[in-house]
Amino acid sequence: MARDWMHWNNNATVDLPIDRMMIGQVRTRSSDSYVPDSASTATAYSCGIKVYNGAIGIDDDVEPCGTVLEAAKAQGYKTGLVATSRITHATPASYVAHVYDRDLESNIALQEIGVGHPLGSVVDVIMGGGRCFFTPQNTTGSCRDDDIDALELARQRGYTVFGDRATFEEDVKLPYLGLFTQDHMSYDIDRDPAVEPSLTEMALKGINDLYKATKKSKKGFFIMVEASRIDHAGHANDATGHLHDILEYNRAMDAMREWIDEHDDSETVLISTADHECGGLTLGYELDGAPDYWFAPEHFASSHGSSGKYATLWKNYKSNDTSDATQYLKKSIYAPYGIMDPSEEEITQGLALQSSTSNFGRFLALAFSKRLKVHWATGGHTGVDVTLYGHGLNHEKLAGQRDNTEIAHFAAEQLGLDLEPITEKLRADREFVEKLVKKQPGDAARLKGRDLTHHHH
Amino acid sequence: MARDWMHWNNNATVDLPIDRMMIGQVRTRSSDSYVPDSASTATAYSCGIKVYNGAIGIDDDVEPCGTVLEAAKAQGYKTGLVATSRITHATPASYVAHVYDRDLESNIALQEIGVGHPLGSVVDVIMGGGRCFFTPQNTTGSCRDDDIDALELARQRGYTVFGDRATFEEDVKLPYLGLFTQDHMSYDIDRDPAVEPSLTEMALKGINDLYKATKKSKKGFFIMVEASRIDHAGHANDATGHLHDILEYNRAMDAMREWIDEHDDSETVLISTADHECGGLTLGYELDGAPDYWFAPEHFASSHGSSGKYATLWKNYKSNDTSDATQYLKKSIYAPYGIMDPSEEEITQGLALQSSTSNFGRFLALAFSKRLKVHWATGGHTGVDVTLYGHGLNHEKLAGQRDNTEIAHFAAEQLGLDLEPITEKLRADREFVEKLVKKQPGDAARLKGRDLTHHHH
Repeated sequence: MARDWMHWNNNATVDLPIDRMMIGQVRTRSSDSYVPDSASTATAYSCGIKVYNGAIGIDDDVEPCGTVLEAAKAQGYKTGLVATSRITHATPASYVAHVYDRDLESNIALQEIGVGHPLGSVVDVIMGGGRCFFTPQNTTGSCRDDDIDALELARQRGYTVFGDRATFEEDVKLPYLGLFTQDHMSYDIDRDPAVEPSLTEMALKGINDLYKATKKSKKGFFIMVEASRIDHAGHANDATGHLHDILEYNRAMDAMREWIDEHDDSETVLISTADHECGGLTLGYELDGAPDYWFAPEHFASSHGSSGKYATLWKNYKSNDTSDATQYLKKSIYAPYGIMDPSEEEITQGLALQSSTSNFGRFLALAFSKRLKVHWATGGHTGVDVTLYGHGLNHEKLAGQRDNTEIAHFAAEQLGLDLEPITEKLRADREFVEKLVKKQPGDAARLKGRDLTHHHH
Repeated sequence: MARDWMHWNNNATVDLPIDRMMIGQVRTRSSDSYVPDSASTATAYSCGIKVYNGAIGIDDDVEPCGTVLEAAKAQGYKTGLVATSRITHATPASYVAHVYDRDLESNIALQEIGVGHPLGSVVDVIMGGGRCFFTPQNTTGSCRDDDIDALELARQRGYTVFGDRATFEEDVKLPYLGLFTQDHMSYDIDRDPAVEPSLTEMALKGINDLYKATKKSKKGFFIMVEASRIDHAGHANDATGHLHDILEYNRAMDAMREWIDEHDDSETVLISTADHECGGLTLGYELDGAPDYWFAPEHFASSHGSSGKYATLWKNYKSNDTSDATQYLKKSIYAPYGIMDPSEEEITQGLALQSSTSNFGRFLALAFSKRLKVHWATGGHTGVDVTLYGHGLNHEKLAGQRDNTEIAHFAAEQLGLDLEPITEKLRADREFVEKLVKKQPGDAARLKGRDLTHHHH
């Protein structure tokens, strides 16, 4: 979709920066479903094992597993985690936290800065969204379920804590914790650059800071960077949010490729893939019957924000005059999202759905997708393979069709890491395992724990 | 889907034969749509150029283009075309025929055996379905619009013509034309092996015969093999037909890989890809909300034929008794297709749709897909990238993200072919171009000829 939009918009054949780095595909099955979630797949990428949907940095027996990030830190590398989601979300969490349920983000936040973690603080660079899980409950916007001030705990552990653009621009001392938003960071198309750095800016800052910090060391650095909100736009079936986060992901990939090419003193390999597909996006409708198929990327030219942004704007609009509301809906909601010609039915529906951002947001997104002639299969994930990209030292060794667990094994091999002693150390701390990793009395059992490998048929 | 079914059915981690040969992805845009058809994409693979949807072996000015098969033949290679569709269908057609509209299969049949073709007969091995376009109108099952006996014309040109399994087993003299069915060959799951050879058997026979025929030559052979009906099952949204044709494609790929490994005297490269995606198939539904996603391949264990087969069976059933009909529908249609628990609504619909194989076939296919928890976006094509596979000599040179036109350029380079003189020779024959390639007075103009490269925005 992004490539076709670029082709249309540039009036010429263009490929995407990632196209030049395409080396394979990854299969994403978890241990309990052919359709995985981000927790199971990120654990495959961090620990190299299959685990159930919802599991963070553990195996199917709910015992912690050593991650490539933890092993890298233990062997003298510097480490980083960058995400545009809450930094406590499943993907970044799975590289350093260990807990049976991805939703326990108050717990995850503490583990990420080393509190209660058997290895202590293991991440030197942390940047993203999700400050709300680091501030005590009862403070504005907090998501925590206790009175812990995790930002203060981070400071006590030596972290430079910041959340503003000005500090981001400065030379911040490692380790640091930069959280720019309470919740997820904005979709790139909605982002205010005066407040939030872009994915590309965060990735480059992280890489450069880790590079500088390891210049005199024999060991280098490991960093995990996630363009997290591509997935969220998939859940929302929001083509515009999706497109612009994909384009920003491409800019970040291109910048990292260039960084590697310009730093031949630093032997670096870049591996990039998705944890899973989301939304089941496909391009194309039949017009007058086969072979008259069509996808219409030109509509993106008039779409200027995410469906979520316009759903919130619409919810906040107040008027008792239906004619005023209709005008506002057409001019300030539909038109800037790219729907220039709403039908009577779409106006009626839009007015009826005003109070629910989720229902109106999906209605808006699907109305626009119909015009683009793209199709979403689901508001959830799918089990289709994802694409694998690589650049730099030895990336070609990972080429081909891979199981997602192989990504961790490749990273471990490239960095000369042994995950086993880390796993042993984590498991040896029984207080940690029993209190922070395992299910606590009274916790709801929401996960089925289906088993694909020992079924009977 | 096929890999997950294999995993489930074998109670263990397995990959598919094609997984071990995965080397890249192909983008499939045509000149007039981001969502292509088989004619434009096969022409990209045969001639190495972008052309409009519906075009066979021509450019956007409706002038013929030399194909890799024609160039190979001209330079002393032996050649073959194998498909499970009608052999006059867009993909095989685009390697040897030149005509502005893919639907002109009476014309295509003649060009395929060299009648009216400026280069004469250029295909040594032809196998597949579609005998109906080779027999005169008014003979049983003919699809031709004239009295030409193309089988007789083929014999006059030296072809051994056959259509039976017994002759297939024999050592047939080249050139030969083996057409096993009037229309497309059967879906693999519906195939009677006493009547129709499998894709794997046809591919191996073709390769072995071309290998033997070129053993004393400095040149070898070029063969195009298409697992054509995967696409048809996509159009029908028939997961069962799709699965089993994909599995047969995997067997054929594995057999060809093995053939290459066992024939190191023959420097051979195998390249395989789809011309385009069809159906927009994705795996997975949400059960109790994220991350509880699920795809249920176990239903394939009780699905024993294509939706088309059961739709025809149902249409042919005669009874005036609703109770008898309901029993038949449940026991002989729904159950063997894998629907063991039809709802009242499904019974009612099934009874109502009996007279239309296309409507009932789609209803049946979608009812089963719902149980599998797979989703189809469309009964047509989509514009998503397809996967690229390779094995043998120099296949790694084609690895990565490719435009579909690059496949032809790679084939030409590997065989040392020059397409330009072939193009010139075809175009020099103005009678051929004006009578057989271009639109004739009175022909309907069904194609839009949109232009993606010179639009204004």
